[in-house]
Amino acid sequence: MSAALTAAEIIAVGSELLGWSRLDTNSLFITEQLAALGIDVKGKSVVGDDRERLRAVFTESLRRSDLVILTGGLGPTDDDLTREVVADALALPMSEEPAITATIARRFSRRGLEMPDVNRRQAMVPRGATPLPNPHGSAPGLFIEAEGKVVVLLPGPPRELQPMLTALCERGLLSARAGAERVFKVSVFTTQRSESHVEELVQPIYSRWRDQHPPVETTILATPGQVELHLSLRAADEAAAMKRLESARQQLVAVLGDSAFTTDGRPLHRLVGDMLRQRRLTLAAAESCTGGLLLERLTGVPGSSAYVAGGIVAYTNTLKTTLLGVEPALLEQHGAVSEPVAAAMADGMRERSGADVSIAITGIAGPGGGSPEKPVGTVVVAVLAPGRPMSVRTHSFPGGREHVRFQATQAALDTLRRLL
Amino acid sequence: MSAALTAAEIIAVGSELLGWSRLDTNSLFITEQLAALGIDVKGKSVVGDDRERLRAVFTESLRRSDLVILTGGLGPTDDDLTREVVADALALPMSEEPAITATIARRFSRRGLEMPDVNRRQAMVPRGATPLPNPHGSAPGLFIEAEGKVVVLLPGPPRELQPMLTALCERGLLSARAGAERVFKVSVFTTQRSESHVEELVQPIYSRWRDQHPPVETTILATPGQVELHLSLRAADEAAAMKRLESARQQLVAVLGDSAFTTDGRPLHRLVGDMLRQRRLTLAAAESCTGGLLLERLTGVPGSSAYVAGGIVAYTNTLKTTLLGVEPALLEQHGAVSEPVAAAMADGMRERSGADVSIAITGIAGPGGGSPEKPVGTVVVAVLAPGRPMSVRTHSFPGGREHVRFQATQAALDTLRRLL
Repeated sequence: MSAALTAAEIIAVGSELLGWSRLDTNSLFITEQLAALGIDVKGKSVVGDDRERLRAVFTESLRRSDLVILTGGLGPTDDDLTREVVADALALPMSEEPAITATIARRFSRRGLEMPDVNRRQAMVPRGATPLPNPHGSAPGLFIEAEGKVVVLLPGPPRELQPMLTALCERGLLSARAGAERVFKVSVFTTQRSESHVEELVQPIYSRWRDQHPPVETTILATPGQVELHLSLRAADEAAAMKRLESARQQLVAVLGDSAFTTDGRPLHRLVGDMLRQRRLTLAAAESCTGGLLLERLTGVPGSSAYVAGGIVAYTNTLKTTLLGVEPALLEQHGAVSEPVAAAMADGMRERSGADVSIAITGIAGPGGGSPEKPVGTVVVAVLAPGRPMSVRTHSFPGGREHVRFQATQAALDTLRRLL
Repeated sequence: MSAALTAAEIIAVGSELLGWSRLDTNSLFITEQLAALGIDVKGKSVVGDDRERLRAVFTESLRRSDLVILTGGLGPTDDDLTREVVADALALPMSEEPAITATIARRFSRRGLEMPDVNRRQAMVPRGATPLPNPHGSAPGLFIEAEGKVVVLLPGPPRELQPMLTALCERGLLSARAGAERVFKVSVFTTQRSESHVEELVQPIYSRWRDQHPPVETTILATPGQVELHLSLRAADEAAAMKRLESARQQLVAVLGDSAFTTDGRPLHRLVGDMLRQRRLTLAAAESCTGGLLLERLTGVPGSSAYVAGGIVAYTNTLKTTLLGVEPALLEQHGAVSEPVAAAMADGMRERSGADVSIAITGIAGPGGGSPEKPVGTVVVAVLAPGRPMSVRTHSFPGGREHVRFQATQAALDTLRRLL
């Protein structure tokens, strides 16, 4: 019986991944899948279609790690070197597998085409390797065991690679070679608190977990408008691990309070959409500085027509009056970025749309338009929900135009979440 | 005099770059900067905060390439190993540079803090290395020449790394070590044509360039709704290179015709915004299936309040009638996704907003809502510009919800561009 795999390296092959426009994103998916098996990625490389460099990087990776995953370079052309270079480095002779040739030929004939002779390269299999079927493309993957180590070759396109790797990890050749331990994960997403504030609240809690055996690991991912806490635990017993993680999560939620909006990974606009759907409520939004971003986020979700009625983007003061019925005197007296105007926008929006819930956002996204009294980042959000008094609040968001706009939509969605 | 640098490798250091959530994006910026100096990136790696692996990867990279750029791992803590590992691998003793210590101490004292002793690590300089000032952080970079090769250490945060590298490449130590040749670039962006259609049109042209000396290289980047052609040329004489690239670009524009919308890299929503501003026109949009995405794109540009009046997101039929004045009979007879309804939305939008230009988009973004007559991806776009008859056209876009929505906004913007 071979030893369990623990340390992996990933090599992405392809000159197109060495330019200024494309990153190897497959490695994130691979890392997440391997982590679930308790296998850590210790290094990643990108190599062009260059025989010598690929051979050198592969050999070095295999010396350092017990699992090497190569992606890309399995196509039929002369540029596609991965299969050959790996077989050569491992000193494994290759031969054509007639069953694979037949499968590739069938793919072509289904489209009324004859298989080009060059595609027979994709049917070459190193001795002892297991071909991995590819329902979404012509290049099969390969699983190779050599000297107690494992080498996996996967096609580059994500829609071919992902199902192939999932099959290997879920109940396939890789899960069979993983150790008894798995990595289990839970998360808590918060909004309306800065990263440093969240850190201050949770640090005394998660620092205690580090000394436990095995430790609960905490990762904090912050973007403007959202801070995510990801907890993970390496363990052999799933029930016990999930019990500890659940308790850890509850400790975090207890200190984060109402700002912890989800523990199932749903983004805020999706969560609020689901709440509206469950309560059979419809929503309309009147947006100024966010220019349609709130409606765009809500309607990006399939099926959102069940709860989004629509809205008005009133970028100019004139449209705030003509489309939303905000009195010119109110705009004159308080300015477009003010609590009375936001409230009038929300009122006008509900009246004109007949929706159950209405939201209004008006603010200064920048970089221009700020003043000493109302600097860039000042945003007023008004939310009107059934049976509740109108909520109107003035926020002050840090960051550039894009960040201010996103934080404004987060604040609006979070206010509605709390009212519902 | 040392030989000109031609082949580079990039090593990103940091365990946080080996997880499932973060990629090393600095390498794209570095690749673009080096390409301009005629230096190709031949390989990229990511290594965790692991002394042995970092040393191995660094040594191997330096053996293969004449320039190695390391990013990250220059902080003050025990995890920050890059400086020490590189000095050790090159057998260079390190000593503290008092001028750097003083600079770091001043950064702290400006914030009323005393410099922690651990930050003195950041003032350690390998013998013969040139420190690179960091106006945006405490970690200086390092430029090291060893055995005719060059090693550059840069801090990980992009706002610290980018100005430092730009200074090195523009008129600094790296540009001085580059060859006489530079890489020059031009681009052409097109819309309303598929990647395969663009490829078919331009392939006969760019394939001829490959045999010229030096060759003009063509890269095609396709996203739904936009195909970008990037041309580059390696040459010593800038004027001659730009003349050839300009001629190459004109040949592409000649076959692409009106679908080539920009040669200066401006995205379509920015280009159309600039056209509106120059012509002193205002715009309003009535959106159904795009749910605010068109307005969101337009208003994402600073200063867009000069030409965007606002708009209406009429997601339901009711709002198409109450907010835009579309006759219920028209909706009944033709359906919401129809040319008469799109035209009525554009008319209603112009009338209610008083804007010079109005755009209406109605369609089926999917995944639900399709029918045999109007499948998912069917989108009708109507555009009304001053002095022109209304343009109304039914499109059929491939892809999922997000892609259909984006392509719909591209089609609307492109129609307006052509009318203006």
